[in-house]
Amino acid sequence: MVSQQDFRRAMAALPAAVNVITTDGGAGRHGMTATAVCSVTDEPASLLVCINKNARMHDLLRDNGRFCVNVLAAGQDGVSGAFSTRDLSIDERLAQAGAVIALDDGQPALAGAQVALGCRIAQVIAVGTHSIFIGEVEQVLIGQGVGALAYYERAYHHLGGAAPLSGARA
Amino acid sequence: MVSQQDFRRAMAALPAAVNVITTDGGAGRHGMTATAVCSVTDEPASLLVCINKNARMHDLLRDNGRFCVNVLAAGQDGVSGAFSTRDLSIDERLAQAGAVIALDDGQPALAGAQVALGCRIAQVIAVGTHSIFIGEVEQVLIGQGVGALAYYERAYHHLGGAAPLSGARA
Repeated sequence: MVSQQDFRRAMAALPAAVNVITTDGGAGRHGMTATAVCSVTDEPASLLVCINKNARMHDLLRDNGRFCVNVLAAGQDGVSGAFSTRDLSIDERLAQAGAVIALDDGQPALAGAQVALGCRIAQVIAVGTHSIFIGEVEQVLIGQGVGALAYYERAYHHLGGAAPLSGARA
Repeated sequence: MVSQQDFRRAMAALPAAVNVITTDGGAGRHGMTATAVCSVTDEPASLLVCINKNARMHDLLRDNGRFCVNVLAAGQDGVSGAFSTRDLSIDERLAQAGAVIALDDGQPALAGAQVALGCRIAQVIAVGTHSIFIGEVEQVLIGQGVGALAYYERAYHHLGGAAPLSGARA
């Protein structure tokens, strides 16, 4: 088995989208930055998010049963930072993100993101220290953000930005 | 539920690492390009790969019980293309990739990648049309590739490239 250090260094070589996962409901409102997100199936539209069982987000997400994946845009480095700063409350985090739009199911979408995907949790799979949440996508909101924020070799990178997504604007 | 088209357009907004997944063993040798890869746990080092049940790779991976994730480097657009061209055999695909190194467990690692992660399948989770393969990482090989190949808005992008990973070279 490889060391944690070697594994982390290797995984830093994978460029990843920077996302803010938000949730709201009976268990409470919260949001955190996450890169471990990927699509699973097209029909039904579903994606997965991996979250550490020790993260405050974990139980809130599970108990609310719903979440929103906000795919950050180029230049939202500060938003990513706010949602990964331990000492900031959810209100302080959201204040850094600008306008927030409630999706049809009440989940908080960041208007400045590229796109926001409202999800209902369909399955939770425990894998050691983490849970994989499978979300069925019930709503897609095109945000105002242009270009992508990527994380690679422990630094932010900006991609594209010339052609914003077409569709209904947030 | 959102349409397949809206979902695909939204997921195109997530920049992703471009990886070639390879496998070898009793069931046969094969390789394919995949972007649906992310880390799961640090201890033990594990990652996941999502694969369509209809892909030729699916049963080979499951039956071999082992695979290698080759994280492509900037400039390996052609390798990505070869491993996603339906009509090419595995030998033809590998011929486009340059040198191949056998990992300790016999899995084929691409020397030109940034990094290759040799994995043993620890868990297979069926989710609709796809399976999520959880791999425990048993070996990390630093490749000769520099910078990252990312896929975003249905186009390749090159990231970094100034500072190669340090460590034992392939």
